[in-house]
Amino acid sequence: MKIEKMTVDAVRNLLSEWDQGEATSHQAIETQVSEMLQKIKIEGDTAIRSYTETYDHVTLADFRVSEAEIDAAYQSVEPAFIQAMTHAKRNITSYHEQQKRHNYMDANEPGIIRGQLIRPIAAVGVYVPGGTAAYPSSVLMNVLPAKIAGVPRITMVTPPSETGVNPYILAAAKIAGVTEVYQVGGVQAIAALAYGTESITAVDKIVGPGNVYVATAKKQVFGQVGIDMIAGPSEVVVVADACANPRFIAADLLSQAEHDQRSRAILVTPSLQQATAVAAEVEKQLRDLPREAIAREAIATYGTAIVVNSLAEAFEVVNVIAPEHLEVQVTDAMSHLAAIHNAGSIFLGAYASEPLGDYLAGPNHVLPTSGTARFFSGLNVDDFCKKSSFISYTKDALKRDMNDVIYLAEKEGLDAHARAIKIRFEEE
Amino acid sequence: MKIEKMTVDAVRNLLSEWDQGEATSHQAIETQVSEMLQKIKIEGDTAIRSYTETYDHVTLADFRVSEAEIDAAYQSVEPAFIQAMTHAKRNITSYHEQQKRHNYMDANEPGIIRGQLIRPIAAVGVYVPGGTAAYPSSVLMNVLPAKIAGVPRITMVTPPSETGVNPYILAAAKIAGVTEVYQVGGVQAIAALAYGTESITAVDKIVGPGNVYVATAKKQVFGQVGIDMIAGPSEVVVVADACANPRFIAADLLSQAEHDQRSRAILVTPSLQQATAVAAEVEKQLRDLPREAIAREAIATYGTAIVVNSLAEAFEVVNVIAPEHLEVQVTDAMSHLAAIHNAGSIFLGAYASEPLGDYLAGPNHVLPTSGTARFFSGLNVDDFCKKSSFISYTKDALKRDMNDVIYLAEKEGLDAHARAIKIRFEEE
Repeated sequence: MKIEKMTVDAVRNLLSEWDQGEATSHQAIETQVSEMLQKIKIEGDTAIRSYTETYDHVTLADFRVSEAEIDAAYQSVEPAFIQAMTHAKRNITSYHEQQKRHNYMDANEPGIIRGQLIRPIAAVGVYVPGGTAAYPSSVLMNVLPAKIAGVPRITMVTPPSETGVNPYILAAAKIAGVTEVYQVGGVQAIAALAYGTESITAVDKIVGPGNVYVATAKKQVFGQVGIDMIAGPSEVVVVADACANPRFIAADLLSQAEHDQRSRAILVTPSLQQATAVAAEVEKQLRDLPREAIAREAIATYGTAIVVNSLAEAFEVVNVIAPEHLEVQVTDAMSHLAAIHNAGSIFLGAYASEPLGDYLAGPNHVLPTSGTARFFSGLNVDDFCKKSSFISYTKDALKRDMNDVIYLAEKEGLDAHARAIKIRFEEE
Repeated sequence: MKIEKMTVDAVRNLLSEWDQGEATSHQAIETQVSEMLQKIKIEGDTAIRSYTETYDHVTLADFRVSEAEIDAAYQSVEPAFIQAMTHAKRNITSYHEQQKRHNYMDANEPGIIRGQLIRPIAAVGVYVPGGTAAYPSSVLMNVLPAKIAGVPRITMVTPPSETGVNPYILAAAKIAGVTEVYQVGGVQAIAALAYGTESITAVDKIVGPGNVYVATAKKQVFGQVGIDMIAGPSEVVVVADACANPRFIAADLLSQAEHDQRSRAILVTPSLQQATAVAAEVEKQLRDLPREAIAREAIATYGTAIVVNSLAEAFEVVNVIAPEHLEVQVTDAMSHLAAIHNAGSIFLGAYASEPLGDYLAGPNHVLPTSGTARFFSGLNVDDFCKKSSFISYTKDALKRDMNDVIYLAEKEGLDAHARAIKIRFEEE
């Protein structure tokens, strides 16, 4: 792990170097994905079946996973799994229920009513990766906020395999309350959800993580359907003072580093001594990790202990990085919330370890990466709702306001707009 | 205007025919926009200056519009304009202020605090079209929700012209409280806002309408920055019963049709007599419109009076179309709100004419088009905020929950996640 004394501007430059390194052209992938989407849009199930044979090496008669299969999977997993997932579900539900919103309406001016309706999106598709990256916890994180929003149709898609769908994924679907599950993965799944096929009805919005093909397909169908966000590799920034425990910090940094070779694990501290201790601990703890190779590469590429002049400067660095996960391992951590503007999820104090948020604490673990916490938010109930405004005016109320409407419409050269108001006060 | 008796399924088919007609390949535009973005990303102001000469035929020393110019424009426009815009600002502000949200925090379990912070986005760019499509009302609609959200930096960009920026646009900026304005338009403006140049600092999110080049550029930079939505031509659906006034309905349909040859103006009614009366009125009112040519083409292409079996079926059709604007011109209009699931903005009763919402009523006029009201919402204060979750756990609280976290982490093969929890309870 590198240790570097840096200014806020130096961090800004480092980030832009890193971004340039990542910005390999995906033109070939873009083109391939675009062609696949077009073909599936036209040929439907036939094209999906053919791509599934090519990419997943599985021949499927029927994409749908039956409810009997889901029930059987649920029965087959350990009771401890059901219990832990049910605990997680309880916390995720109680946290996200606080995000539910009310319609509003004002009736303060005579004859005028104005308001906003919040409605659940009618149909949502959840992409769940398969293979070695099958995370049942993500099923809960993607599905439960949709349930709380009141989405009536939630469809899950996940890649097929020769041995069937991972039973933990199916058990998670059962716990989350999803009954419509298809064994379709990759670009095929995104196309089916966006355009619909003979056997899969299109949805209005697609959420859930996936590889670069899935992410590219989601970006390309954006506008045809809604999508949640464009996610990159996981990342954590730990802000620590001299009093923090370097063993805890190193363990938390490595919990991100083990995700992906491109994961970023960064310490920001005003204490050079702390930086040195954490770097030594990271090296020590790396040795006996099952996923050592991945974590080691991530630490070698991006693992950095940034030494700054003060805690205030540390939070400036945080806001420039806008990390997915931020740990604040300093004395009286909560008192620093006001300084934090850009972060997906914030973990306060020595015992709020990031993996706690991945599984159990309740906040969502689907979070904005690569600095997008500047403008994206973690997945939440709003992502599964849409808003409609409404107005009602009486004739008298319109009469009071008509002159300004007519004036502005004519100023913008939109005479038919002006006339729509005038005609209501003209004799036939 | 065509009159057709249709089922809900027939409407679905008609929409998908229309969509296929619209879905001309933009591949050439995509490529051109992508090349321009890349060039501006690398060359900055030099490239912007050169594109501005090519496309806007203007040579600029400085892109920034000075505050003196903004003040001068404000002084130069008619007092009636200032008065009408100030009236609009008052209504837009009071409507959108109801969208402001609070942080939440729960502290119900011993040692555990969980919550969500709402923060304004730090920097937002507002694109304002120029030329004949310069709409000062849009400046208010895009800027005021950002102001209410608390966005500290709001930057406006608008195409240059030989005669300078439209004074009504600058006066609107002054009324909305924007002081940072640049004369840069098209793809150049989007690139400058997304990547930054020597003279224009990058923003975190870009909002505002534009032509197909602007829309394509916005979609391409999505992910690097946030964007509001991908907007198509304006559209209105009027649901009317036999009692509604066909003159009002025809005038409202034409107020959308005059926007663009591709605008959609649709009547849905259970009354064949009403459909016939509206079609006759549309033809009659078309004759003396200044923008007759545009409106006539829009009506010829898309203008349709859909006759259905019942009012209930009319609202089913509405939910399939998911219109940008919906007028409900039926007796006791508000009682039908429960039937409306997909619509950008809803106008209830004979006097809630759609242009009233474009200028003065208060709800936003930046609304989802082309059926995207299924998942997008009109521009609102949430679009200018982002959310961060936070948690704080004491050692005892973590001890209570640790087993389930460790179990789930190990189940997903993420041992470093499990160890980050375990290490907090191990002796050094």
